[in-house]
Amino acid sequence: MNMFRYFIYLAYKGTAYHGWQVQPNGISVQEVLIRAFSTVLRHRVDVVGAGRTDAGVHARLMVAHVDVQVPFTNLAAFAYKLNGILPNDISILNIVPVRADAHARFDAVARTYEYWLTTEKNPFLSEGAAKVYGSLDFEAMNRAAACLMEYTDFTSFSKLHTDVKTNNCRITRAEWCRRGEVWVFTIRADRFLRNMVRAIVGTLLQVGRGRMTEADFRAVIEAKDRCRAGVSAPAEGLYLTDVAYPESVFIVD
Amino acid sequence: MNMFRYFIYLAYKGTAYHGWQVQPNGISVQEVLIRAFSTVLRHRVDVVGAGRTDAGVHARLMVAHVDVQVPFTNLAAFAYKLNGILPNDISILNIVPVRADAHARFDAVARTYEYWLTTEKNPFLSEGAAKVYGSLDFEAMNRAAACLMEYTDFTSFSKLHTDVKTNNCRITRAEWCRRGEVWVFTIRADRFLRNMVRAIVGTLLQVGRGRMTEADFRAVIEAKDRCRAGVSAPAEGLYLTDVAYPESVFIVD
Repeated sequence: MNMFRYFIYLAYKGTAYHGWQVQPNGISVQEVLIRAFSTVLRHRVDVVGAGRTDAGVHARLMVAHVDVQVPFTNLAAFAYKLNGILPNDISILNIVPVRADAHARFDAVARTYEYWLTTEKNPFLSEGAAKVYGSLDFEAMNRAAACLMEYTDFTSFSKLHTDVKTNNCRITRAEWCRRGEVWVFTIRADRFLRNMVRAIVGTLLQVGRGRMTEADFRAVIEAKDRCRAGVSAPAEGLYLTDVAYPESVFIVD
Repeated sequence: MNMFRYFIYLAYKGTAYHGWQVQPNGISVQEVLIRAFSTVLRHRVDVVGAGRTDAGVHARLMVAHVDVQVPFTNLAAFAYKLNGILPNDISILNIVPVRADAHARFDAVARTYEYWLTTEKNPFLSEGAAKVYGSLDFEAMNRAAACLMEYTDFTSFSKLHTDVKTNNCRITRAEWCRRGEVWVFTIRADRFLRNMVRAIVGTLLQVGRGRMTEADFRAVIEAKDRCRAGVSAPAEGLYLTDVAYPESVFIVD
């Protein structure tokens, strides 16, 4: 049967979910989406994400592809209907037609994450930012973060025993900025290893507290040993914020 | 016994509470504060707020006064200890000494509220902004809002059968602005009647939808009749954001 593929752009607050990926132990964002799509379309659909996010991690922008039997005539109306079915913490932002062989995960050329941090107790951000006690030297953290762009092997910041073939990533942005009430670490790369952003943030916090110098930070990367990095920063501060694709995957009318 | 009075500046997310005021039907912010203060101080304290907020309403800044038997030697350390005991959705921002006769409610000379509104489904604001469907004419809403400053009797926007002696308020600011992902209505007055901000916002939404003109809006105010105003806007969009006092209440070292 002829199938028609679409990219779904969506956002979710990860607090209530056991991550993106369907799994037996708890409810996942992917599972909720599959159920909503299948309900509206009246046929079983698979929802293939650009990547996985761990339990409690949020997405300001996630991309997933779905195949449908009949092409949509009104994308906005379909998105509206889906949003009515989906819970408050998941929102469809946009739906766009793509080539039949476009793949949300394999065709992505860059991903961006943000890590949100507060140094003050904030009732409105207890589920949306990590609370870090004490003062942090953000200038030192930014000098160390800039080093990340000089390296490609990030074994030191990856989860052990995963099935990926290489631990190489090209990081093209890594910096802390103040944004209103929060400090935001923005990191962009062609790909990320599992747990990588939270391990990097946890290690940069060691720099910010003065427990690690820029040279120490470089040594951690160069050691290619996960045991040398800092403790992973908590999930509630992490947001997937962008996934980029080449123009060629999209169908232009 | 000599007592020492302090103003407590605090913020809270109102979602989980049955409003500010202690009441038999559910947990209130005031009750949680009284318990935390009494635990740390080891004597029963009363916490007197600058005003009441209804169930589900938030505060970016609320002020309350407390009396303690022994003056604080380290205000920051005491605030830190309180924040450790208080739940994630209540945060002490500051504690300042005031004159023994200073009153959080009666001495307040102005209060400011914000009403947050989104026109798109937003997973991160489902408890912190009202979701309004359809497009709104914010220019028309701002023209109507400006009229509020020409009147003083707001009986039309008050709850019936309250025990206040007068329905007169002096509104000194009333305007909608775009702030990032949300539309924010800021309103400042010397005092507010119960339910007043939500009734005003609900009526301005009628203007924004084109169902009421500026002249209709003026007629609602002039009627001094609650039945003429629009339905109250939902609690989750409302924030108390400032309470102002004359300098004379504070003790300056």
